[in-house]
Amino acid sequence: MAPLQSWLDIDPKSDFSLYNIPFGIVSTAADQEIHTAIAIGDHVLDLHVFAQGNGFSALSIIQPHQAVFSQSTLNDFAALGRPMHRVVREYLQSVLLKDGPFPDVLETNKDLRTAALIPHRQCQMHLPMRIGDYTDFYAGLHHAYNVGVLSRGPENALQPNYKHLPVGYHGRASSIVVSGTPIRRPNGQILSDPKTKEPLLAPCRKLDMELELGCFLCKPTALSQPICIQDAQDNLFGVVLLNDWSARDIQAWEYVPLGPFNSKNFGTTISPWIVLMDALEPFATVGIQNDVKPLPYLDERGRKSHFEIDLSVILTTSAGKSSKICTTSARNLLFSFPQMLAHHTVGGCPFNIGDLLGSGTISGEDMSAKGCLLEQSENGKISIKLEDGEERTFLNDGDTITIKGVCGDQIGALVGFGDCAGRIDPALELEYD
Amino acid sequence: MAPLQSWLDIDPKSDFSLYNIPFGIVSTAADQEIHTAIAIGDHVLDLHVFAQGNGFSALSIIQPHQAVFSQSTLNDFAALGRPMHRVVREYLQSVLLKDGPFPDVLETNKDLRTAALIPHRQCQMHLPMRIGDYTDFYAGLHHAYNVGVLSRGPENALQPNYKHLPVGYHGRASSIVVSGTPIRRPNGQILSDPKTKEPLLAPCRKLDMELELGCFLCKPTALSQPICIQDAQDNLFGVVLLNDWSARDIQAWEYVPLGPFNSKNFGTTISPWIVLMDALEPFATVGIQNDVKPLPYLDERGRKSHFEIDLSVILTTSAGKSSKICTTSARNLLFSFPQMLAHHTVGGCPFNIGDLLGSGTISGEDMSAKGCLLEQSENGKISIKLEDGEERTFLNDGDTITIKGVCGDQIGALVGFGDCAGRIDPALELEYD
Ligand SMILES: [Ca+2]
Ligand SMILES: [Ca+2]
Ligand SMILES: [Mg+2]
Ligand SMILES: [Mg+2]
Ligand code: NI
Repeated sequence: MAPLQSWLDIDPKSDFSLYNIPFGIVSTAADQEIHTAIAIGDHVLDLHVFAQGNGFSALSIIQPHQAVFSQSTLNDFAALGRPMHRVVREYLQSVLLKDGPFPDVLETNKDLRTAALIPHRQCQMHLPMRIGDYTDFYAGLHHAYNVGVLSRGPENALQPNYKHLPVGYHGRASSIVVSGTPIRRPNGQILSDPKTKEPLLAPCRKLDMELELGCFLCKPTALSQPICIQDAQDNLFGVVLLNDWSARDIQAWEYVPLGPFNSKNFGTTISPWIVLMDALEPFATVGIQNDVKPLPYLDERGRKSHFEIDLSVILTTSAGKSSKICTTSARNLLFSFPQMLAHHTVGGCPFNIGDLLGSGTISGEDMSAKGCLLEQSENGKISIKLEDGEERTFLNDGDTITIKGVCGDQIGALVGFGDCAGRIDPALELEYD
Repeated sequence: MAPLQSWLDIDPKSDFSLYNIPFGIVSTAADQEIHTAIAIGDHVLDLHVFAQGNGFSALSIIQPHQAVFSQSTLNDFAALGRPMHRVVREYLQSVLLKDGPFPDVLETNKDLRTAALIPHRQCQMHLPMRIGDYTDFYAGLHHAYNVGVLSRGPENALQPNYKHLPVGYHGRASSIVVSGTPIRRPNGQILSDPKTKEPLLAPCRKLDMELELGCFLCKPTALSQPICIQDAQDNLFGVVLLNDWSARDIQAWEYVPLGPFNSKNFGTTISPWIVLMDALEPFATVGIQNDVKPLPYLDERGRKSHFEIDLSVILTTSAGKSSKICTTSARNLLFSFPQMLAHHTVGGCPFNIGDLLGSGTISGEDMSAKGCLLEQSENGKISIKLEDGEERTFLNDGDTITIKGVCGDQIGALVGFGDCAGRIDPALELEYD
């Protein structure tokens, strides 16, 4: 079946087909104001301008709420709830559809098209949500196993709790940045000579990335109010790609006994466009089969709550040469976002709209499917071969990491995420007298 | 020397003497709006009403900024910076001073006194700050040692990193609540029979408290911008008492390898009044001498950056009987808030105004100075004797924990924090079919 067409010229290989309609926050050089928008092909549709220009004239249900499109984050739109997200997304699809029901709204409305439909390259992207709290999970089974093998050997690779609950830790919300923001190599305490037990303050020597998904919440919950697993889907707004930059040498010294801290809080990059749960629904699948039967509060009863997203990681050197260093699928998770949310709230932890869940590093079983350099280089022991003869164990200054993700393979109907990219800047030279 | 007197009748044993002037957020039954206020004796001065009534007429420097007093959090007041906090606090002291320079402002202005000066008991207290990120440290040396002895014995009680850096973890901002909010016993995964390795979902059986200080930030920092130790004081707004409620059985099962999670995110209680750094300055002291020389970025060069605050913990049973179960001093910390902040930002982690640092549990060396029940009961092995013949190892439903803290012993000049209290409500009965 040929995919639905838009009257707008859309590259059939675009992440942002008519089937996607992801939401983000943009500004343009011409208009410094920050607005909500959707991505369509290589354009963005500024929803503030669209709403002001009567673009929602044929969708009366949204009219009392149109102020949400003039906000500088998507929190207020998210707060309208999943049924409203669906209606708005489907309406925008129909407005963009060739021979659709509403040609007057945009297709033949030249003034509004000119004002609201902007080439993507003219836009600056901003953090899409105001994030109160960020939690990073560890649900990538193959990643957890590979990392466990490095520290404890294959017999005890997974901790006893690992298959019983989605292991996670509270992350730092203030250092989440949007794709394109440079990441400065952190300084930190490092035990360079483990024999002396004397740390020094130095630039990280084992700078790493982690391939993850992020999921934003659209519903608040009160203190002491657990979310039951059957209802958890209602609380999910949409998904982004996430790079949990990690300083492995800082982590190794600091993390006992309370977990990672400065090794993780110097920057976390997310892709700018939030792909709504409804857009992902056609790609729903089951995750990794858990050979431990979940407790009832985590039991999804076989529901397809994971997604078939083809993920890849590209390392681009400062010379501009790109190498694909990882190819995997988002299916490689032992726990789903609904399970993470049910676990996170079972003791009463409250959520705010805009809170973010990270999946944990996603690795497949193959050599080419390892989602971080710690795994690929076996903590620095193995050289990773790049194009042009370069090699890496961890990241060099000037390296750019780009995560890509796309659902489906039908040209003209792809549901992709756009890039989640960041370049490594050299560490600050700290001086103390 | 006799302390300075106010024209207002102040109980000489009040935490809120003329020497204190702590800031908080209040509402009254008569006026549901939420405003900034200070505490003075058993009254609060509503600063919104005070400002509207020309109370700041003799302080021209604050006049362009008076809107901060009508906010529902202290973030905007904090943002004015420490020099302005000092000026406002000293002005309010002089307005309240007997035979002071500004009797017309409040003392003889009956209308404004009636409108702005409200008995404390008529006020409801609210969370004083909008908290973006919360970090809990572990700087109480005796606590860390006692806990380490329980799990690893006295030889290896402290981890190798412990004296080199302030160990900490990211906490959950959304579950921070103001004193008086009931705390519901969390349900969570518990390994009741360690032999089977099969967890169950059950109400926490080892519910604990942790005696801590919290410190709020008043200055934002950008990504990749370290705060140097000499400047860190400028970033500190003020201090509260903090109870880091902890579920020890949930913690024991979940915390490997990424640290505490659901065991800590079901509630963290803070006292409602923020005691400004200037009010604490006369009680500055040195902390515990560190026998490891700090790296230069943590070197305070002997600066008195800790505080002599007399701390106590009272357990009140549901029958209403109170027992003092801990008496100690806030001096018992190995790292200060400036050191925590210098460490937290050395890799580039950014801060927002309103972010909160927890000190870690504060225990002294004596038996009577242990700041949590895990230490006092040696993880449930020893019974803690209460008044009226009751005993505890951990908290019962209906128990109320009240933390108190006061600086100084000069009657009429105390600088105290008011109560940091919370009562344990029974766990929710969760049902799954
Ligand atoms: Ca991670
Ligand atoms: Ca604590
Ligand atoms: Mg937060
Ligand atoms: Mg936060
Ligand atoms: Ni009165």
